[in-house]
Amino acid sequence: MIVRSVEDVEGTDADIKSENWRSKRIILAKEGVGFSVHETTLYAGTESEFWYANHIEAVFITQGEGTVTDKATGETHELKPGTVYLLNDHDKHIVRPRTEIKCVCVFNPPVTGREVHDENGVYPLITEEPAGA
Amino acid sequence: MIVRSVEDVEGTDADIKSENWRSKRIILAKEGVGFSVHETTLYAGTESEFWYANHIEAVFITQGEGTVTDKATGETHELKPGTVYLLNDHDKHIVRPRTEIKCVCVFNPPVTGREVHDENGVYPLITEEPAGA
Repeated sequence: MIVRSVEDVEGTDADIKSENWRSKRIILAKEGVGFSVHETTLYAGTESEFWYANHIEAVFITQGEGTVTDKATGETHELKPGTVYLLNDHDKHIVRPRTEIKCVCVFNPPVTGREVHDENGVYPLITEEPAGA
Repeated sequence: MIVRSVEDVEGTDADIKSENWRSKRIILAKEGVGFSVHETTLYAGTESEFWYANHIEAVFITQGEGTVTDKATGETHELKPGTVYLLNDHDKHIVRPRTEIKCVCVFNPPVTGREVHDENGVYPLITEEPAGA
C-alpha cells in the first residue's frame, strides 16, 4: 500500500504549474499500476485547449463550475462537482472554468511525469518501466 | 467524449448500496478505457474490511476524515481531503471514517458493474469486451 497526499508532491517535479492550471501528479507510471492519478486546479476565467493524442483521460470534477467544449462536435457541457468527462477518443476540447475548478484526472497510459504540453496542447507518449518490475 | 454525472447513475444498476458505503460507478469496463471510475461514500463511524484479490485500486479522498489500516503491516494512515491510497499489492485493509468520506476510486482492471463484494470483501474478476470494440 502506498499512501501519499497532494501536499507531498507540492514543489516537486510532479507539481506542474502553467498560466492556466496546476497539476499535482500523485500516482505515476513508476508505480506500475497501469494508470496515473493527478489533482488538477484550473483557474477561474481562463480558457485552455487540450488534446491528448496519445492518452485517454477521465476528469472527475470535485470543486468549481465551468464548461467543456468538444471541438469536433461544437457541443458544450456544464461542469460542476460530480461531473465526469471522459476523453475516450482523444477528443480535442476547450475548458472554461467560471470559478476555480479542482478535478481528479486519470490517464491511461500512465503519465511518467516528464511530459509537458507542446504547442498543440498535446502530451507526447513517454513510456517507463514500472519501478521494481 | 462522454460526459456523465454521479446523478446520472443514481438509482441504476451502477449505484451500489451497502450498510457501510455507497458506490456510484460512472466509468465502467464497457467504456473500454482500461480503468473504471467510481465515487464512493463511506459512512461515518463504520468499519469496513476490503480486499481486492483481482484488482488494483487507487482511492483519492475528496471529503471527510478517517483512517486506513494496512492489515499486513498493521500500519494506520490518516485520511483527509487530498490523501490518496493505492492498493498496488492487493492489500487487505480496513477503512474507518470518523466523518462521512467521499472519494474517487479508480480500478484496474475496470469493474464491469456486476461485481459485488463476497464474504471476504473481495471483488471477483469479471471481464467484459468493451462496447463497440
